[in-house]
Amino acid sequence: MTVRRQITGFSNPTVKALRALREKKHRKAAGRFLAEGLRLLTDARECGHLPEVLVLSESRDPHPLLEALERAVSEAGGEVIETTPDILAKITGKGNPQAVAGVFAEFDASLATLDRTSANIWLVAQAMRDPGNLGTMLRTGDAIGAGGLILLDDCADPFGVEAVRASMGAIFTQRLARARWDEFESWLRGGDGQLVAASLRDAVPYRGAPYAAPCFVLIGNESQGLPEAYEAACDLRVTMPMKGRADSLNAAIAAGVLGYEVLASLEEGAGSARQG
Amino acid sequence: MTVRRQITGFSNPTVKALRALREKKHRKAAGRFLAEGLRLLTDARECGHLPEVLVLSESRDPHPLLEALERAVSEAGGEVIETTPDILAKITGKGNPQAVAGVFAEFDASLATLDRTSANIWLVAQAMRDPGNLGTMLRTGDAIGAGGLILLDDCADPFGVEAVRASMGAIFTQRLARARWDEFESWLRGGDGQLVAASLRDAVPYRGAPYAAPCFVLIGNESQGLPEAYEAACDLRVTMPMKGRADSLNAAIAAGVLGYEVLASLEEGAGSARQG
Repeated sequence: MTVRRQITGFSNPTVKALRALREKKHRKAAGRFLAEGLRLLTDARECGHLPEVLVLSESRDPHPLLEALERAVSEAGGEVIETTPDILAKITGKGNPQAVAGVFAEFDASLATLDRTSANIWLVAQAMRDPGNLGTMLRTGDAIGAGGLILLDDCADPFGVEAVRASMGAIFTQRLARARWDEFESWLRGGDGQLVAASLRDAVPYRGAPYAAPCFVLIGNESQGLPEAYEAACDLRVTMPMKGRADSLNAAIAAGVLGYEVLASLEEGAGSARQG
Repeated sequence: MTVRRQITGFSNPTVKALRALREKKHRKAAGRFLAEGLRLLTDARECGHLPEVLVLSESRDPHPLLEALERAVSEAGGEVIETTPDILAKITGKGNPQAVAGVFAEFDASLATLDRTSANIWLVAQAMRDPGNLGTMLRTGDAIGAGGLILLDDCADPFGVEAVRASMGAIFTQRLARARWDEFESWLRGGDGQLVAASLRDAVPYRGAPYAAPCFVLIGNESQGLPEAYEAACDLRVTMPMKGRADSLNAAIAAGVLGYEVLASLEEGAGSARQG
């Protein structure tokens, strides 16, 4: 039998603490982050991530997945809170809140936790500043069967509400690592791995380029692109057609177009090998 | 010789009127929208779009393109305003504003203004709610050489600050049309045109599908996808691999991946035709 704590006051200290998780410094201090929505929290549970605190809206509709979630959180010793839709909106900062939110412990995000042989594709973002782009890259990574996302240099916080929301649950399915460039480079060169950049310098067409697994697809900062030294360190530089006036794509779009090309290329390669 | 009007007061009625353009109802009433940044305004000028009002920051650095812009606006009978960085920040709603912003007349956005034979690819968004996605689709359209973006049903406003910003100038290089579905369908069927949807229903792999120009790439609403009737009306339904837990891509990513695939397919087709 689940014990639910009722919270009805906006000034309740728990509400304040949860709400504070929308700010990076408080997330960092607490080592916790917020995620919303039954679908997302169910994805999380099925990937082995249970919230430490589950916050339910009083106005939720009953749902078997919600009951399963509540049961799992209680059994794991987590806390279940029930509150008003208004307070839930205040916590998540979203006018029309989902019926459920959860507080999760941040994951270990060191390179050492990654098994590069577990996937053929890895996305790598350098100084990605827009949390929406970062979350979208996670979501795209899930779609192309990437192993995870490696964040280089000073990126937006992947555990921020906007990034988590844009990831559509992929924050829980993709591995995540944060590293400085030199750390990453020495880790990468300590094993197999092809580093590929979308680049305008000395690049071959992205279509039909010789991609090889595990392929690390490196996308640079939204306004500056990649530092020249990073591009120079790549095994392969590829370029996408730019037919108009613009000379670059949105960073998440570049990751998507290139990621899908690498996926198709590696699968076609595997197909030929099987036929041969 | 350019005449610049100095504005130094936050409560100046012009400041209020410009600032109001950030809201959709005021944009609609005025038929005007805001765009910021020297690069974007220069792209606009080179595409034949001059701002009616040019707003310069007192703290701008001199730049030949800025001078050219100011001259062109003056010669066209437009107004040039000089103001403080704080007031410019207030107008554009951006903490660290660009040195220049402009007020443009909204374009005619009826289907009748589109020449479908002017490009091989057209992007079509249905009920796209996120202005960032919409602007990103414009930017991607520019990159793949699309003719423009057709907005079906109730989409975000392409002239909103966020959409214009995300378009990175493509709001001025891409044609734009707004229509209800039935209007669009009857216009489309009144000429050549293949309607292609990214779909999960009865779809063929997006890679190697028989795309034909002019190809209209239809992307559905972020959370609902396309209405079934719209999908049924398509000439071709294609699907992208989904290797993970998610069953959909971000809408702008889907447009990017599919748009680049159509571009490559049509160019390869043209290549074979030339060889044959």
